[in-house]
Amino acid sequence: MKIQGKHFQSIWLSEEDPSVVQIIDQRHLPHHFIIESIQSHEQMAVAIREMHLRGAPLIGAAAAWGMYLAALQSPDLGYLPFLENASKTLFNTRPTAVDLQWALRSQSEVLENVKGPAEARQQLLKNAQRITQASAEYCRQIGIHGLPLIEEIAKKKGGKTVNILTHCNAGWLACVDYGTATAPMYAAHDAGIDIHVWVDETRPRNQGARLTAWELGQHGIPHTVITDNAGGHLMQHQMVDLLITGTDRTTRNGDVANKIGTYLKALAAFDNDVPFYAALPSSTIDWEIEDGIRDIPIEERNAEEVKYIQGLNGQEVHRVLLTPSDSPASNYAFDVTPARLVRGLITERGICAASEEGLTTLFPEMRL
Amino acid sequence: MKIQGKHFQSIWLSEEDPSVVQIIDQRHLPHHFIIESIQSHEQMAVAIREMHLRGAPLIGAAAAWGMYLAALQSPDLGYLPFLENASKTLFNTRPTAVDLQWALRSQSEVLENVKGPAEARQQLLKNAQRITQASAEYCRQIGIHGLPLIEEIAKKKGGKTVNILTHCNAGWLACVDYGTATAPMYAAHDAGIDIHVWVDETRPRNQGARLTAWELGQHGIPHTVITDNAGGHLMQHQMVDLLITGTDRTTRNGDVANKIGTYLKALAAFDNDVPFYAALPSSTIDWEIEDGIRDIPIEERNAEEVKYIQGLNGQEVHRVLLTPSDSPASNYAFDVTPARLVRGLITERGICAASEEGLTTLFPEMRL
Repeated sequence: MKIQGKHFQSIWLSEEDPSVVQIIDQRHLPHHFIIESIQSHEQMAVAIREMHLRGAPLIGAAAAWGMYLAALQSPDLGYLPFLENASKTLFNTRPTAVDLQWALRSQSEVLENVKGPAEARQQLLKNAQRITQASAEYCRQIGIHGLPLIEEIAKKKGGKTVNILTHCNAGWLACVDYGTATAPMYAAHDAGIDIHVWVDETRPRNQGARLTAWELGQHGIPHTVITDNAGGHLMQHQMVDLLITGTDRTTRNGDVANKIGTYLKALAAFDNDVPFYAALPSSTIDWEIEDGIRDIPIEERNAEEVKYIQGLNGQEVHRVLLTPSDSPASNYAFDVTPARLVRGLITERGICAASEEGLTTLFPEMRL
Repeated sequence: MKIQGKHFQSIWLSEEDPSVVQIIDQRHLPHHFIIESIQSHEQMAVAIREMHLRGAPLIGAAAAWGMYLAALQSPDLGYLPFLENASKTLFNTRPTAVDLQWALRSQSEVLENVKGPAEARQQLLKNAQRITQASAEYCRQIGIHGLPLIEEIAKKKGGKTVNILTHCNAGWLACVDYGTATAPMYAAHDAGIDIHVWVDETRPRNQGARLTAWELGQHGIPHTVITDNAGGHLMQHQMVDLLITGTDRTTRNGDVANKIGTYLKALAAFDNDVPFYAALPSSTIDWEIEDGIRDIPIEERNAEEVKYIQGLNGQEVHRVLLTPSDSPASNYAFDVTPARLVRGLITERGICAASEEGLTTLFPEMRL
């Protein structure tokens, strides 16, 4: 997607130095646009854990690139144990999103078929590139499949503005390009449909207020930032036509783990007959898990993320304390929306019901 | 209630100067404790509109005191038109809470029976004192009636901690004393029941993170601040036994207008069979309105409250920008929870069902 007219993806191999992977350090957005150069898998693990980059598909790609960087640093003798350790380090950065695990498994499979360290480097690079480009292509396909949903609403409304609510950032910054939840929005806007996006700010890390608002603004899509509390009221008053979010892990039966608070929006959508779709590349489907609420591990992050927030004060980004200094806080990062509240899943192969039957119709190779 | 061991109410007539009303300027909490002296109804109108004080019962009392201050400044000739104007100024500060209107109506009724400006001053003072003390007493009664709800849960759980979730600040800072939603919590804590309160931060103005957390901390009640997004997840995992909030306006049929986001928590409570009670003095009941979603005016506040937030940086309170500077924001302050999601209403006369029948059983004088 474009930043001030220039095309960017959210992760890329440096053109000057092929031992360096570059990312947009999202912690500084929307106030400062900073590119970070990453030279080791340890540095990539920090970038993932500390959320220099985030978003299920992107951290999958980032982990794959981390394995390539590890290969560049691995000793020729014993490169396999070195890479196994690197994989573990990357695996342990974030527990909820399944893409990370999927990408690392994919790199491990690459390693099973190589004959030496040089080939490992070459093949891990090739696979990281493949994963990255597949991720972008999957998101483009999600846009193509999601577009008719918006077209249909626009038609029903006789061309009046289609209002879409989204939570967190499932935009191109969370992926490699296009985004998941945002892909149909970009496709609709580019097709000339009049859309407006309600952007949940998404406490505690404000990925909506910081990243989604910035992305949409860069692309020229009309949007309004709202607090996470506001969506229910908007839905009660027919001010939302469609709810679309991403998902960090989708179970075999269509339960959707996504940014904390998604469940509350899904409840309000259901209560007001607003269709709720989760948009996802199939890499986020966990075919092993059936009951999302019971079985998906929910990351608990540092309470400081709730107690403090950062923002721009003059030209500088400051971190300010929001609570009494001695009040404890808790910080669950995700919640699980049961399939019964999800109208459908938008995948790279099309739209399906949020159920095992729906998913295996699109992905028949996963039938048990 | 107590602040560092000293008893306070949230509004009082200055002991040194009976032409001055004093309030706690809540904008600076929890970081700084500042008492503001108010000397005119215009100053009181600013304090209400700009939320130096807030909370349905408290702004009712504040408006009543504002009329007393207006009477002190009114000319002897033409004091009635002067006071009518003052009443309009105070009326126009906040549109959603009905207490404000109720308190001003009560002061207008006082004026109907006075014979001159001196008597007006005297009677408006007396009525402001009466409204203030009645408000405190109603909240104390709410605590007495709400306590058995918590006792019962504690008994069922065999003495294990009772976890209560609350949204916004319906604490003593929002009232005159005790609070509405917090009154049963203070009563339970003082009765030796082991409770823990999940405090929604309550964006955009963070009354939970700033005020409720501070109040509970001052009283020694264990609590944890959470984002507004987190409550659904906690309820799904049996980490909430009871949801209690205040309400700014309750309709005849039990719909509850309260701080934006209450509806989302009520949906999650209903979905997980967690009982949701709204606590209110009867002054917040609007007997004229039946359909809350259709008929209660919802205040839309300045978008800057969403785009900026303030917090402590070192010793100073700073205001920081959270969004791209050119992204618009919207700021509805309240939402309406339909009666079907409310398990019951805790009033100064007892607990009733959230329905016309329930309410008129407790308030038979309001039967049509």
